Amino acid sequence: MHFTSEQRLDSGVLEREFTLGEIPGTLWTPESAAPAPLILMAHNNGLPKREARLVARARQSAAYGYAVATIDAAGCGDRPRSAADEQARADIRRAMQAGEPADEIFESFIGPLVEKVVPEWRTTLDALLSLSEIGGPVGYSGWTAVGIRLAVVEPRVVAAGFFAGGYVPLAQREEARQLTIPLLFLLQWDDEGNPRQRALDLFDAFGSRAKTLHANLGGHTGTPWFEVEDGDRFFGRHLK
Amino acid sequence: MHFTSEQRLDSGVLEREFTLGEIPGTLWTPESAAPAPLILMAHNNGLPKREARLVARARQSAAYGYAVATIDAAGCGDRPRSAADEQARADIRRAMQAGEPADEIFESFIGPLVEKVVPEWRTTLDALLSLSEIGGPVGYSGWTAVGIRLAVVEPRVVAAGFFAGGYVPLAQREEARQLTIPLLFLLQWDDEGNPRQRALDLFDAFGSRAKTLHANLGGHTGTPWFEVEDGDRFFGRHLK
Repeated sequence: MHFTSEQRLDSGVLEREFTLGEIPGTLWTPESAAPAPLILMAHNNGLPKREARLVARARQSAAYGYAVATIDAAGCGDRPRSAADEQARADIRRAMQAGEPADEIFESFIGPLVEKVVPEWRTTLDALLSLSEIGGPVGYSGWTAVGIRLAVVEPRVVAAGFFAGGYVPLAQREEARQLTIPLLFLLQWDDEGNPRQRALDLFDAFGSRAKTLHANLGGHTGTPWFEVEDGDRFFGRHLK
Repeated sequence: MHFTSEQRLDSGVLEREFTLGEIPGTLWTPESAAPAPLILMAHNNGLPKREARLVARARQSAAYGYAVATIDAAGCGDRPRSAADEQARADIRRAMQAGEPADEIFESFIGPLVEKVVPEWRTTLDALLSLSEIGGPVGYSGWTAVGIRLAVVEPRVVAAGFFAGGYVPLAQREEARQLTIPLLFLLQWDDEGNPRQRALDLFDAFGSRAKTLHANLGGHTGTPWFEVEDGDRFFGRHLK
């Protein structure tokens, strides 16, 4: 893990860019000297790690006391995309703009993407936990499909907050039943691209006994800011 | 309003019993000298104001900084019940134990009860706001059916937290569309006596633009304690 730049924010949070082999990432650590619990924060497919909403959430959670890390995993963000990936993304955009069903394209694109992405998150987790300023335990926040798979294969992830705003492949909808860690599931009630009933069914399917659903009125990008603070407190109950 | 007893709790909260005409009530006020915002806290029909879960929540919210008041309204808690009310409650218990539909009995019993109860809450609100230690604004917490009607007729109620655990009469399901105040709607995902889809439909119906649903796994009485703290913060955003 090589740090390539750093800046100290007004909150005292240290924001550092890093590379880990081909993986570019950002790490935010709180000012406190004690080893911090870690939150892995993943955007839904395609959005870059530098996207403003993710950066704002990461900075807030780091100021609250967590180490927060994100990466552009394979095929995501600013990483190179294959011609097939570009085609799939174009097909999805066209189908959604035309109001046509996009489930089959999503399944054929997001399913394999999850398979590619999760190993890179695990590699990143190994590297992060070797840093003296990060102590664990580890939480996960964001992209639901990747988070389900990661939590199923990775015992070091002990709590997760999922955003119900993206397509979840059939494999992960099945794996949801295997999850037993505490979950906070965040739903935008009128999310344009995410059928509400499918999200409610997924919440129902999670095997966790400690699971909480937060739903707010509004579309995909309308999540109220107080949900970031609720998320910080959720992790505060479980990352100890 | 006559105070009949008082005790100072370890948290500094002052807990006082009062009567207002025929209405018995309890008022919790925080230690702070400044006039406090007020939360009206109503249990679902039948449960007395002295019930342990309500008392624990009220004490917590008063320690957080709110004045909290509850009453045994007409036909509720320790207030006298008519023979017809006793019969209706017995019919409901028998139907539910037998697994039979109880909607018609609920409708014929809870509908008129809401009509009787809400004027007593308004009378209580008048008296409470005349106290120097209570400044407003006013929030409402608890029994959904009464809260909907109260918020529709009472402009002094500016935010409400509803517990989706009781029968909501058809009239209040219609009135829900008229609500515009910020709402926090609390649902137990496996509530034995409360059909989940009906609760989700009610959440959908509320006219408020700022509405949030919190759902937790478990039955009617299984709401996690952190929801009391979430409720305090919800009111903190709106009772200013």
